[in-house]
Amino acid sequence: MSKTIKAAVLGMALAIHAPLAFAQERDTATEAGNEELVRGFYDSFFNKHDTSAASVVADGYIQHNPYVPDGKDPFVDYFTGYFAENPEARNEIVRSVASGDLVWLHVHSTNGAGDRGQAVVDIFRVENGKIVEHWDVIQDVPEEAANGNTMF
Amino acid sequence: MSKTIKAAVLGMALAIHAPLAFAQERDTATEAGNEELVRGFYDSFFNKHDTSAASVVADGYIQHNPYVPDGKDPFVDYFTGYFAENPEARNEIVRSVASGDLVWLHVHSTNGAGDRGQAVVDIFRVENGKIVEHWDVIQDVPEEAANGNTMF
Repeated sequence: MSKTIKAAVLGMALAIHAPLAFAQERDTATEAGNEELVRGFYDSFFNKHDTSAASVVADGYIQHNPYVPDGKDPFVDYFTGYFAENPEARNEIVRSVASGDLVWLHVHSTNGAGDRGQAVVDIFRVENGKIVEHWDVIQDVPEEAANGNTMF
Repeated sequence: MSKTIKAAVLGMALAIHAPLAFAQERDTATEAGNEELVRGFYDSFFNKHDTSAASVVADGYIQHNPYVPDGKDPFVDYFTGYFAENPEARNEIVRSVASGDLVWLHVHSTNGAGDRGQAVVDIFRVENGKIVEHWDVIQDVPEEAANGNTMF
């Protein structure tokens, strides 16, 4: 083979293998799918209060929020009661990212007009199309701030 | 040009452009670099209390923590005082992700032995190798939990 052809064949080999190698390192297609799954669930559950959206939550859901027990059923029970008492509760996703099997959401949670609400970060772990684990951090938005920005 | 050469040239073009197209969609190399920058800064600043690590923070640092003013200098001043009063303060990064220009850290912040501490998520935006913006959410770890897991 001439040098030109060798270089060309190498070029074709790179064209085929470089994106695959890249994708193995970081499976961005799965990450995007996980993010879509979590955002869809989150909006239906926490904004439309459609607790049937928890069909994508695994039965053995591992819960790190210290106020909610482990498992899908206790999670649904908890929020069925919460939404009944707080029909105006809404969780606006301000930004989100997916990396590996985790989806991270930065959220402004409010409970009706005039509520300053809470800043929240939710982290969900997704395994085979099911949400299997959850962590969160929640902080009240204070009335005044030392800077001119919001918490979002 | 023969068909073979045309195909070979096309192959070379793909070899050059396919990874770039991928990189535009998700520049995982830059993301990894941003994550390393932020984690290095965070460890030096919040664990070693080396405030000179703020050299990677932009002068016009946009601050969304409602208790800290905008800008690098007020940030360094705030924590210089805080570390002097809290020499045992440590922020353990439990997990982190990078996506786009953001780096997200899930952190266990403690202040000496026996402190249950706080769960924190910090979000940093990186622009051209400088940390230019910051959001966080902070919650005290409660004494008891409704499940057998930690907040981490």
